[in-house]
Amino acid sequence: MTTQLPPSVLVGLVGRGVGPSLTPPMHELEGARHGLRYIYRSIDYTADGADADTLSDLLNNARVLGFDGLNLTYPVKQTAVALLDEMTPAAQMIGAVNTVRWQDGRLIGDNTDVSGFRTSVIDTLGDSPLGRTVAMGAGGAGSAVCHAVAMQGVERLTIVDVDRHRAAALAEDIAAAHGQHVDAATPEQLPHLLTAADGLINATPIGMAHHPGTPLETELLNPGMWVCDIVYRPVETALLSAAKERGCRTISGLGMAMHQAADAFEIFTGKTADRQAMLADLRSLVAAEQHALIAHR
Amino acid sequence: MTTQLPPSVLVGLVGRGVGPSLTPPMHELEGARHGLRYIYRSIDYTADGADADTLSDLLNNARVLGFDGLNLTYPVKQTAVALLDEMTPAAQMIGAVNTVRWQDGRLIGDNTDVSGFRTSVIDTLGDSPLGRTVAMGAGGAGSAVCHAVAMQGVERLTIVDVDRHRAAALAEDIAAAHGQHVDAATPEQLPHLLTAADGLINATPIGMAHHPGTPLETELLNPGMWVCDIVYRPVETALLSAAKERGCRTISGLGMAMHQAADAFEIFTGKTADRQAMLADLRSLVAAEQHALIAHR
Repeated sequence: MTTQLPPSVLVGLVGRGVGPSLTPPMHELEGARHGLRYIYRSIDYTADGADADTLSDLLNNARVLGFDGLNLTYPVKQTAVALLDEMTPAAQMIGAVNTVRWQDGRLIGDNTDVSGFRTSVIDTLGDSPLGRTVAMGAGGAGSAVCHAVAMQGVERLTIVDVDRHRAAALAEDIAAAHGQHVDAATPEQLPHLLTAADGLINATPIGMAHHPGTPLETELLNPGMWVCDIVYRPVETALLSAAKERGCRTISGLGMAMHQAADAFEIFTGKTADRQAMLADLRSLVAAEQHALIAHR
Repeated sequence: MTTQLPPSVLVGLVGRGVGPSLTPPMHELEGARHGLRYIYRSIDYTADGADADTLSDLLNNARVLGFDGLNLTYPVKQTAVALLDEMTPAAQMIGAVNTVRWQDGRLIGDNTDVSGFRTSVIDTLGDSPLGRTVAMGAGGAGSAVCHAVAMQGVERLTIVDVDRHRAAALAEDIAAAHGQHVDAATPEQLPHLLTAADGLINATPIGMAHHPGTPLETELLNPGMWVCDIVYRPVETALLSAAKERGCRTISGLGMAMHQAADAFEIFTGKTADRQAMLADLRSLVAAEQHALIAHR
């Protein structure tokens, strides 16, 4: 008679509209591979103001209720910063956290969006400095992406957003954090920018199932460029499809989605994630979702 | 490539000083037997006043964070009543809940202390009405035990407590709930009461590792009586040991501890608990704990 059980891990994802996220099953499948009792809950955070009081209450209760850690997404990645006892250098740099865990009662924040994107770029382009890079979208995802690009090293980084002020503000943040010049621009400047660009990153939601289309005229892409999309549902966005046709190297959003989850898994468990297996799981999950969508038509 | 996982169940035990409880491993071992990813957390509830506001906040957050249900123990079994959307008849009768679960967003309270004790008595004595029964201890456990005795049917029930008023108040509650006369007494009356008793139940903490001794002079036990102890650590208390020596039938606290957990497991999961296996687990857990205690001396 044995009374031994596999170790348990209790974590979750807090944010608005997190129901359809594929991060929970990615984590739980990886947990099962490690023989853990791994539960990853989707925690829909609907407080209108996303104020620190409500989030503080949720985090305190999560600790009391035995959660080991949490992933955070929109709109609480920045709100959470004031509630931490400690932050990793990566999280401090970006001023936002997507992963928190309790250690000896202290709440420690990390950011695996940055590390996840960085690893996905390295997987395809290697770890040498990037050339002239254009990043579209100056929101939360754009911020993570641009910090990762600046960490890798970049000949020239230009942040493009329809909101000129938002682009300028992010460019200033990145410049201050990494001590290098960063440009800001609006989409009208893309024809000029892309003639001299080595790479393009889409960090806008355009290309997602709910935001079809491309974030720019695909005629502007040069065959010698690499093109990266952080959208991963569908895996091949209209942007990546057009880029492939033109002979560009492409980086889909699957890598970032997988690596941010794998990095968080390692933070939560202290174990080494099987990233190839997690990528295969994510492909299957996206494919299953596409089939379900088609079946429901 | 499969992306199927076993169903997950997330539950816990809320109360003061719940750390050493064996209910969490009992549940998790039973969950594993059913192939579930079953996590049962010990949730130490330290709020001094145990006020409804704090408990309400904890329960609301537990729902938001994806808990399927909770067991409750001292000091929140009665505080929780005002926070429920619905109560089972058993819980209404006793006015206390030890098991809550969310169903379609509604919080439903149940009491498996009563059903658990009742089944443990039936296991040994059968389901016919009990004779003249003396119950010692008019606290929360005594309340559950006396309601169970009254539900089974009893020739005469006498509740004994060192606090005369507490004994009288519980006797009134039981009488009102079940429409039958119930006596209250203090320990000085035990010699007289036990000469005419068919059974004795200890619902005080005396006999636990931290409260050694017996709740009464064991010379008062008659060989023809049955003697029941709700203490189960140790399994054989000094009371049960003395009762066996005198030839009494005995009922240990293991049965109640197991059945209350099995009943809660069935409420949380909708599955049928393997009670023989849970009892064997509980025996092993108690034995392992005794070995650990001895090893630490």
